[in-house]
Amino acid sequence: MIDPKLNALLERFARGDRLALARLITLVENRSAEVSAVMERIYARTGHANILGVTGAPGAGKSTLVNRLVGQYRAQGKLVAVLAIDPSSPFSGGAVLGDRVRMTDHYRDSGVYIRSLSTRGHHGGLSRAAREIVKLLDAFGHDVIIIETVGVGQTELSVMDLAETTVVVTVPEGGDSVQIMKAGLNEIADVFVVNKADRDGADRIKAELELSVHLRPADAGWRPLVVMTQAANNVGVDALVAAIARHGEYLRAHHDAARDRERRVREFVEVLTSELEERAERGLRDGAPGADQIVAQIREGAVNPYGAARKLIEDRAALADLLGAGATRAAGE
Amino acid sequence: MIDPKLNALLERFARGDRLALARLITLVENRSAEVSAVMERIYARTGHANILGVTGAPGAGKSTLVNRLVGQYRAQGKLVAVLAIDPSSPFSGGAVLGDRVRMTDHYRDSGVYIRSLSTRGHHGGLSRAAREIVKLLDAFGHDVIIIETVGVGQTELSVMDLAETTVVVTVPEGGDSVQIMKAGLNEIADVFVVNKADRDGADRIKAELELSVHLRPADAGWRPLVVMTQAANNVGVDALVAAIARHGEYLRAHHDAARDRERRVREFVEVLTSELEERAERGLRDGAPGADQIVAQIREGAVNPYGAARKLIEDRAALADLLGAGATRAAGE
Repeated sequence: MIDPKLNALLERFARGDRLALARLITLVENRSAEVSAVMERIYARTGHANILGVTGAPGAGKSTLVNRLVGQYRAQGKLVAVLAIDPSSPFSGGAVLGDRVRMTDHYRDSGVYIRSLSTRGHHGGLSRAAREIVKLLDAFGHDVIIIETVGVGQTELSVMDLAETTVVVTVPEGGDSVQIMKAGLNEIADVFVVNKADRDGADRIKAELELSVHLRPADAGWRPLVVMTQAANNVGVDALVAAIARHGEYLRAHHDAARDRERRVREFVEVLTSELEERAERGLRDGAPGADQIVAQIREGAVNPYGAARKLIEDRAALADLLGAGATRAAGE
Repeated sequence: MIDPKLNALLERFARGDRLALARLITLVENRSAEVSAVMERIYARTGHANILGVTGAPGAGKSTLVNRLVGQYRAQGKLVAVLAIDPSSPFSGGAVLGDRVRMTDHYRDSGVYIRSLSTRGHHGGLSRAAREIVKLLDAFGHDVIIIETVGVGQTELSVMDLAETTVVVTVPEGGDSVQIMKAGLNEIADVFVVNKADRDGADRIKAELELSVHLRPADAGWRPLVVMTQAANNVGVDALVAAIARHGEYLRAHHDAARDRERRVREFVEVLTSELEERAERGLRDGAPGADQIVAQIREGAVNPYGAARKLIEDRAALADLLGAGATRAAGE
């Protein structure tokens, strides 16, 4: 069912070919029809990596901190991947430029794989793309995967669901701890970092964060740790690594089989609904026979789109045709 | 097909009952299975309202400005609705509190309908909910609908697609015009507002924005206008209303039938894929007979979710069962 070229690419991927990894990530970014087949093939190899999320407001020094974390994990001999989710600008050249200026320390290290994913043009599919790229990085054999996002916006936050441990980075500046709570970062943090801790107000924000942690109900589970760092001077990064490790130990000690089952079902719902959505979109775009006439009517404003959608879904043959069209074309691509 | 209680609600809605409007919006917020049927019924009444988007960074004074805009449109005798999309905090009580503190000027005016939509718990369905609520507000007979969002994040930006005219609000503060471009707001703005224009640096940011507008290619179409306001003092709001009106005239003068057709197809793709997604999700959750066994296997981690999704979609009977299950249950609710 998978075409020979894709098969060859998957074999190169399995042998540890970084160019094959890059090509597969590009397929995901371009929403190629082959993505599901790729995921189906690599899925069994996933589950090895420790996935970290690093988020926080722009200017908090996330990239520098991630750079330092990479250094620490590399010193432990681990293979590290970084997925930076960039709100890229059309003026800066976006993610491509981002890859080059980012983490120059590790750019030539073959034990570090760095990739940016632009937030543009995904139209709600950003978290799907991020999930699939993380699976690729995991299946490739990375020990640690660091996802870096700007801590704003619904989609950006949802990407943090992929991480086992989420690090929220803040800086000693007016009202920053209030902003964190407003943005909902408080809820997702497993570890707080007060970066640029040599600045005025660092102790105050640390105290505020610790207070917010201690105000949680006693039975709320893991209590987030607060770590002070100066990423630019490589100060406190070892303490951050230790805090992340402690959270990992907590997760293993409190392993929750019921939650695992729930997570698997949630993942399946996402995979299935994404697949339905993409097949339907391709089918409509490529003019699947059963949908052709409906799309022509929609185009002229002649029918109610909600009624037309309902009829199409309830017509078993037309629906199978619509959803199958994507699959047929994908195989033939 | 629609149950009698919902039918009665739709009839009250059609007679202009604001409580019925509120109830229908709540159905959308709760992702009730009845939403599609509601949309199908009210769709023919939509298309009347002028839909404005107002976005910009927190603290730019968007709410005050929207409050002033409402005052101007009310003075023109127009019925106005405001949909405020709130990154609500679990601590503040979120959207409910937002409704109360927001726009106290117009709270008792029956010509103004104000509603907040929390960004929480939508899991990527925020833009869908916003689109449906705007349709409800439109079908209800509002002349102007103002959607207010914080201008950050992929989802929040995508909501602005609903607006005919998008107003990007900025303030004279360090690097604000750079932030606007980074966030991609530059591309979506039809009108820029420099609010708090009595502050230092207002002229500079106005000049920067005007320069960025003039650097666009000559054939790029509408050139965004830049308006200075002091919303708190009600200064410049009439000029903003005039700029919005000019953009509306431009759109009517350059009416593009091809773009209309494209927009209709895009809307249909969204409606159809959303409906597929929600029916599948409900079917899986409610244990549709065809999916029952698969979900059990997924739960135990016994099967590859990508493979299972593919098989389920390619099994015509199981799929129809999965997608139909939602519909049957919905009717019986």
